[in-house]
Amino acid sequence: MAWESYAVILAGGSGTRLWPLSRQSRPKQMLRLLGERTMFQLTVDRLLPLFRPKRILVVTGHEHAEELRRQAPEIPADNFLVEPVGRNTAPAIGLAALHLRRRSPQAIMAVLPADHYIRDEARFRAVLRAALQVAERGFLVTLGIRPTYPATGFGYIERGEPLGRFGGFMAYRVLAFREKPDPATAERFVASGRHAWNSGMFIWRVDRILEEIAQALPDLAAGLRELEAALGTPGEAAALRRLWPQMPNISIDYGVMEKAQEAAVILAEFGWNDIGSWAALLDILAAGDQGNVVLGTEHLGLDTAGSLIFGNGRLVATLGIQDLVIVDTEDVLLICHRDRAQDVRLLVEQLKREGRHEYL
Amino acid sequence: MAWESYAVILAGGSGTRLWPLSRQSRPKQMLRLLGERTMFQLTVDRLLPLFRPKRILVVTGHEHAEELRRQAPEIPADNFLVEPVGRNTAPAIGLAALHLRRRSPQAIMAVLPADHYIRDEARFRAVLRAALQVAERGFLVTLGIRPTYPATGFGYIERGEPLGRFGGFMAYRVLAFREKPDPATAERFVASGRHAWNSGMFIWRVDRILEEIAQALPDLAAGLRELEAALGTPGEAAALRRLWPQMPNISIDYGVMEKAQEAAVILAEFGWNDIGSWAALLDILAAGDQGNVVLGTEHLGLDTAGSLIFGNGRLVATLGIQDLVIVDTEDVLLICHRDRAQDVRLLVEQLKREGRHEYL
Repeated sequence: MAWESYAVILAGGSGTRLWPLSRQSRPKQMLRLLGERTMFQLTVDRLLPLFRPKRILVVTGHEHAEELRRQAPEIPADNFLVEPVGRNTAPAIGLAALHLRRRSPQAIMAVLPADHYIRDEARFRAVLRAALQVAERGFLVTLGIRPTYPATGFGYIERGEPLGRFGGFMAYRVLAFREKPDPATAERFVASGRHAWNSGMFIWRVDRILEEIAQALPDLAAGLRELEAALGTPGEAAALRRLWPQMPNISIDYGVMEKAQEAAVILAEFGWNDIGSWAALLDILAAGDQGNVVLGTEHLGLDTAGSLIFGNGRLVATLGIQDLVIVDTEDVLLICHRDRAQDVRLLVEQLKREGRHEYL
Repeated sequence: MAWESYAVILAGGSGTRLWPLSRQSRPKQMLRLLGERTMFQLTVDRLLPLFRPKRILVVTGHEHAEELRRQAPEIPADNFLVEPVGRNTAPAIGLAALHLRRRSPQAIMAVLPADHYIRDEARFRAVLRAALQVAERGFLVTLGIRPTYPATGFGYIERGEPLGRFGGFMAYRVLAFREKPDPATAERFVASGRHAWNSGMFIWRVDRILEEIAQALPDLAAGLRELEAALGTPGEAAALRRLWPQMPNISIDYGVMEKAQEAAVILAEFGWNDIGSWAALLDILAAGDQGNVVLGTEHLGLDTAGSLIFGNGRLVATLGIQDLVIVDTEDVLLICHRDRAQDVRLLVEQLKREGRHEYL
């Protein structure tokens, strides 16, 4: 049986961790954090050597679909699956699986976030090829990232018995998915050598994931069945609008993977970073003199070190500072110690409480 | 003999120490550093209880005259003496003295900078009244500020024998003017108890200062004599344009006061600050929670302390920072440690070297 591989890019997120650059109307995947191309475009670029454009699907919200289509004109417009309201990853993946089952009974899908950084793209694709092989055998495959420090911001995957070597990469049965740990637990995970970060990248056969959804999330499965009947009919859009708000707002990790029997993990090392904070961006970008990173503007610095300056065209002058994150946007200026970058969400929460929607 | 008192506000400066808010086109005296009124307006306000508007003269450059007239409409337009090019304080004071001698043979002038902060205005006026009494006797009077720390950014005045008490304030003969000292010398000055900061405020009879200029600066005196012949004639403006660029570019302190025999100092304590840096502004403004000062914008701060935020309408969000000076302007953003605020001029010098006149 010949399997057909598809990439499904999840581009529905609207994170606040790169506020004030990221906003509800301008989520992380739309930002030019690394140069001329947006995070979404970089995600497409790194998939094109492995998937033809018509084999790439994008799931996104209605408010962003038009912009994303413009950013990736090579992908057919019909391949953008548009959610009427944002749900979590389980419904989004279910929607993509429905569409793929109509296209091919032997579809395999690689589910990939739209806003991650991957340094070694060739190695990433090699890992993905290996994962597609493992997925053909019926496993729900995840890519696990070898931890480099005891992160508390990621879920972890504990591996069990080895399944063998695929294209040079070891695959293991998954023993357990672990939610974001406290610092002590994170230390223990890293020391064990058996735990990997959950990258949020999944590879599986469409028939298998729909089976698992039917088992683990019967409500979602029922909604998807009802929706499937309308796909390709004049009533499709209306059905989606009607059904989508009722879909369970649950992640694929928590809703399906934690209960799946046939889960596998491939250990991956390709310079992955989810750019979960401004400090993370500072880490991954090659720093110039004094360890500063300057993007989007001109910088005049004296005695300035270890700082990220994300500008908006205005001259940024700094004097006698270190380890700061400075983000200059049209209507908001953020100045933050790099060690506190993960707390930017606290600022966003306060603005939300105060009803300052213009800044969200 | 009845003396007529005048105030002469020197508003010609174009400092760079409050860059990027202060620019060549927008010097410190035009800035709203303390609220709604500009430094120049505050200077006029504090003089009005002591001088009628027609007794207040303003010396300024041609590029600022119109704006200053608008800011102080109560002062007759003719009282603005406009320099064709910026010179130092000696020519500016000479020009004002010429004009005053034409108005009254018994004029006394109080020379006052346009951009200083004075906390206790009533006390300031009381000191000024005392100084006018001392000046009537023929002394060139300066106001000396009792030092509160060993500043290296001011000149010092060493006092000699007491001249007596005037309106409750002690006046002394000046022993010596000292230029800006090195740190060790500054320590010694403060420890001596005999040295006061030179505030740049002077009070003297017009006949006396013109006498001293004639003695100490014969070139300036000659230029002024030539100019005086044209005052009030149709050729006045042309004479000023022709003569002014040749006037010696010298300060009254260095050019006249250091050599004057009959110099007196009144020790003054009225909460004076020349706002010579952003850190100085932070010092004088009443700080709110956490010792932050916020002006000109809205501030959303978490774990933010000891910082000055001078905004431009955009929301400034800060997180985990302390002791920073943040100045947000239309085209430049400055972020500077408060302990380095006096080095802002280094940034300005670098821009000048690079020919970036748009930022100067």
